[in-house]
Amino acid sequence: MAVCRSGLLPAMPCASPIPLPNVLRTLPAAVPRARLATVPRKRTAPQPPAVMASGVVPALESKRTRLLSNSTAPGLRSAVVDAASGHLTLQWSDGLEASLHSLWLRDNCATRRHAATGQKLFSSAQLPAHLEMSVEQVTGSSVQLRWHGDGHVSEYCAHWLRGIIPTPAESAHSSTSSCVVPEFEFEDVRDCDPSTKLSWMQAIVSHGATLLRGVPQTEEAVQTVAEQLGPIQLQIYGKIFNVRSEPAAINLAYTCEAIGPHMDLCYYESPPGLQLLHCMRFDADVSGGESFLIDGFKVAEQLRRDEPAAFDSLSRLPATFIKDHADRPEPVLMSYRRPHFALNADGSLIGVFWSPPFEGPLQLPLHQVTEYYRAYRVLSNAIDTAPRWQYRMQPGDLIVFNNRRMLHGRNAFRSSTPHARSLRGCYVNIDEFANRFNVLRNRFGTLGSPEMNHFGNQDWGQGIIKLQRAPALPKG
Amino acid sequence: MAVCRSGLLPAMPCASPIPLPNVLRTLPAAVPRARLATVPRKRTAPQPPAVMASGVVPALESKRTRLLSNSTAPGLRSAVVDAASGHLTLQWSDGLEASLHSLWLRDNCATRRHAATGQKLFSSAQLPAHLEMSVEQVTGSSVQLRWHGDGHVSEYCAHWLRGIIPTPAESAHSSTSSCVVPEFEFEDVRDCDPSTKLSWMQAIVSHGATLLRGVPQTEEAVQTVAEQLGPIQLQIYGKIFNVRSEPAAINLAYTCEAIGPHMDLCYYESPPGLQLLHCMRFDADVSGGESFLIDGFKVAEQLRRDEPAAFDSLSRLPATFIKDHADRPEPVLMSYRRPHFALNADGSLIGVFWSPPFEGPLQLPLHQVTEYYRAYRVLSNAIDTAPRWQYRMQPGDLIVFNNRRMLHGRNAFRSSTPHARSLRGCYVNIDEFANRFNVLRNRFGTLGSPEMNHFGNQDWGQGIIKLQRAPALPKG
Repeated sequence: MAVCRSGLLPAMPCASPIPLPNVLRTLPAAVPRARLATVPRKRTAPQPPAVMASGVVPALESKRTRLLSNSTAPGLRSAVVDAASGHLTLQWSDGLEASLHSLWLRDNCATRRHAATGQKLFSSAQLPAHLEMSVEQVTGSSVQLRWHGDGHVSEYCAHWLRGIIPTPAESAHSSTSSCVVPEFEFEDVRDCDPSTKLSWMQAIVSHGATLLRGVPQTEEAVQTVAEQLGPIQLQIYGKIFNVRSEPAAINLAYTCEAIGPHMDLCYYESPPGLQLLHCMRFDADVSGGESFLIDGFKVAEQLRRDEPAAFDSLSRLPATFIKDHADRPEPVLMSYRRPHFALNADGSLIGVFWSPPFEGPLQLPLHQVTEYYRAYRVLSNAIDTAPRWQYRMQPGDLIVFNNRRMLHGRNAFRSSTPHARSLRGCYVNIDEFANRFNVLRNRFGTLGSPEMNHFGNQDWGQGIIKLQRAPALPKG
Repeated sequence: MAVCRSGLLPAMPCASPIPLPNVLRTLPAAVPRARLATVPRKRTAPQPPAVMASGVVPALESKRTRLLSNSTAPGLRSAVVDAASGHLTLQWSDGLEASLHSLWLRDNCATRRHAATGQKLFSSAQLPAHLEMSVEQVTGSSVQLRWHGDGHVSEYCAHWLRGIIPTPAESAHSSTSSCVVPEFEFEDVRDCDPSTKLSWMQAIVSHGATLLRGVPQTEEAVQTVAEQLGPIQLQIYGKIFNVRSEPAAINLAYTCEAIGPHMDLCYYESPPGLQLLHCMRFDADVSGGESFLIDGFKVAEQLRRDEPAAFDSLSRLPATFIKDHADRPEPVLMSYRRPHFALNADGSLIGVFWSPPFEGPLQLPLHQVTEYYRAYRVLSNAIDTAPRWQYRMQPGDLIVFNNRRMLHGRNAFRSSTPHARSLRGCYVNIDEFANRFNVLRNRFGTLGSPEMNHFGNQDWGQGIIKLQRAPALPKG
């Protein structure tokens, strides 16, 4: 395993752009140069999503998965090291420009990773404060850099670099005009072909929920469906739970009372990402009992625009979530303090937490108490007036929804028969679902879209990227 | 179930303190009045920890668990509503004073919760912006308030209110002078009595790790021990994993290479809280292979003092953690972006993440790249020079450590025999462990200490509190 060393020569300014064959120059005109991140911001026009956002390294993909043809992807037009800043600026054939930092480039040399495991073999702490490099070669498909210290040559795939670039911030949750839940047939997703499965998962990610029809009314069906999405997440209510009116309820869900919009298990550090509810029985004589969903992320983004002061309070002042239930065979005493909205350092919304029945005593300094309750009222009102998807489940229906994004609840119901409305439910961990979704997107070349950061899993990122791996890529 | 309503009369100033019997006045003199939170800051002198920090409501405890006698706890000396602010100010017999907000008090009326489940039955959004109250009665053990709107009387247990008060910030992790791992015998903790189990769990929480000796070298032993602490957390390496040199390693851990200080699974939203490693075999002819632990929280707090600029960068700029391993029977493609240090809004350290082998490409704006790598070097150096507990495990040894706080690793080793050094490991979820620890602390009356916020589970809180529940407490 080759590991780079990084003793360095003094700074050496370099150099003019290395031009590429003219054929690449016939592609769209350059956009104004953006001084970008490891990674940039600006694009000329919307790109084909699979190309623009993918982090797949085509040379390392198997034949089966190479659905993304290089011929449709923008190639590199030029690569130049800026004498003043020392940054590498790349321009792609569609005009996209991005500047990359020398430290970042050396840190991401593919030869620094274990070939089989992808694990990093070199400490970033060993990188010197300053690095100098020159462009050794640039082709449409890759750029080679030579490091002035040790003469090591690092090669980067143009397509991989393109995949590192985050897509522009999306307004996926800006509209509150509707709450749509796509429908699928159980027959279609059971033992389904991977592309159907990807469509189903994609719908869960995009819309926050899907409705599955025709699921057999067997005890194990909800588990069967869940395990298509990820392993079931164990929690204090057991692996599978029955939602039906019980005489000695340990949760309001197990009564016939109305349950307002909420998320489950906010007193866990990592509440379940997906919740499944399978309707086993819903007798015709039951009145009420409709299920509903509200898009919590849309509510939050709307609040950011309409009530910025409340939004600020809700992202700064921690609520208390609590489960204090000692009188159980397996006693529970859990709590977690977090603001209702989680933001990253850029102010992006990365989490929503709303679970009124499980609020515990607020723990805030006296001078913040009024502020908290004022903001709480604003949010509560926004939730109550938000568009909702409301639906009376039928036996054989199964809803899957994102428990981090969608608030769920049900209307009160009445019936003369015990268990006349009966659902079976379970959860899937958010990381495990995201993993399976990523693996499938990678297989179909759609990896790299920023949708996962709308999952509410408090990840600061914008979609997943893949590693650049050794061995060196074929010359372009 | 009684549910409070909160239509209110106009403000009405009230009133002078209601004095308590003189017997309580013989207790320690009052401290200067602190304007406190829902909850306060200052104390005269250290109190007996079980009393000072406990949130247990004695009247609701079973005989078995009522280890904490009311007679040793400070009683309420006075309760007064301040005319200007409308806050309730309480003074305990040991001089502690705390002011509570009217909104908070009404929101925490015990009659607002479902008796069996403890779930909240009333929306905080229904609380009006202003509430007026008078002190109806105050005794050593409780205070009753009358609400001017609806005349409802709420009663609060003095001991419960005392338990809500967070303990002062501790400097538990301020010293880097040592890294101590307490030792226990397997015989003592196997099917152990609850108090021994609490001691063991307490040691894990306080020190970040314990060493268990004399664990049988059976395949299932590590699972048996783990399940004393919580259910095993499934993750991508399976339920139980073997750490030994393998020909086709899917992780550096499964080679004989040195592994630097790190935490496991930082690419999960909620990495495992506890890790267990059970030594099955460690032949005498193996050279090297010592395990070590470093207290990551101590390193971080030391850095905050010595290198505040680096500390700031490390708590603001997200690192990328990645697991990109498609070439497995169950492919994995996970990533998570988070700063190395997680802070809450008060600047308290609530999480540390360090896992160099699993760093992916940094995704930061260009102008922050140098800052990130500079801070990274500082942290890396601090870790390398921090005190470490280093130990050559013997067959039958089992270490349990907090994977969120302690960095672990091992020295390289050499041996002529395959599998001459062999460990079996598994994980326990942090929430599940915390729950069992809380339940046991509640049973022994030591609940309420702030130790859980040193767990690194990104909880903004300071220890768990219990709910005040209906029915009303007996009059004091």
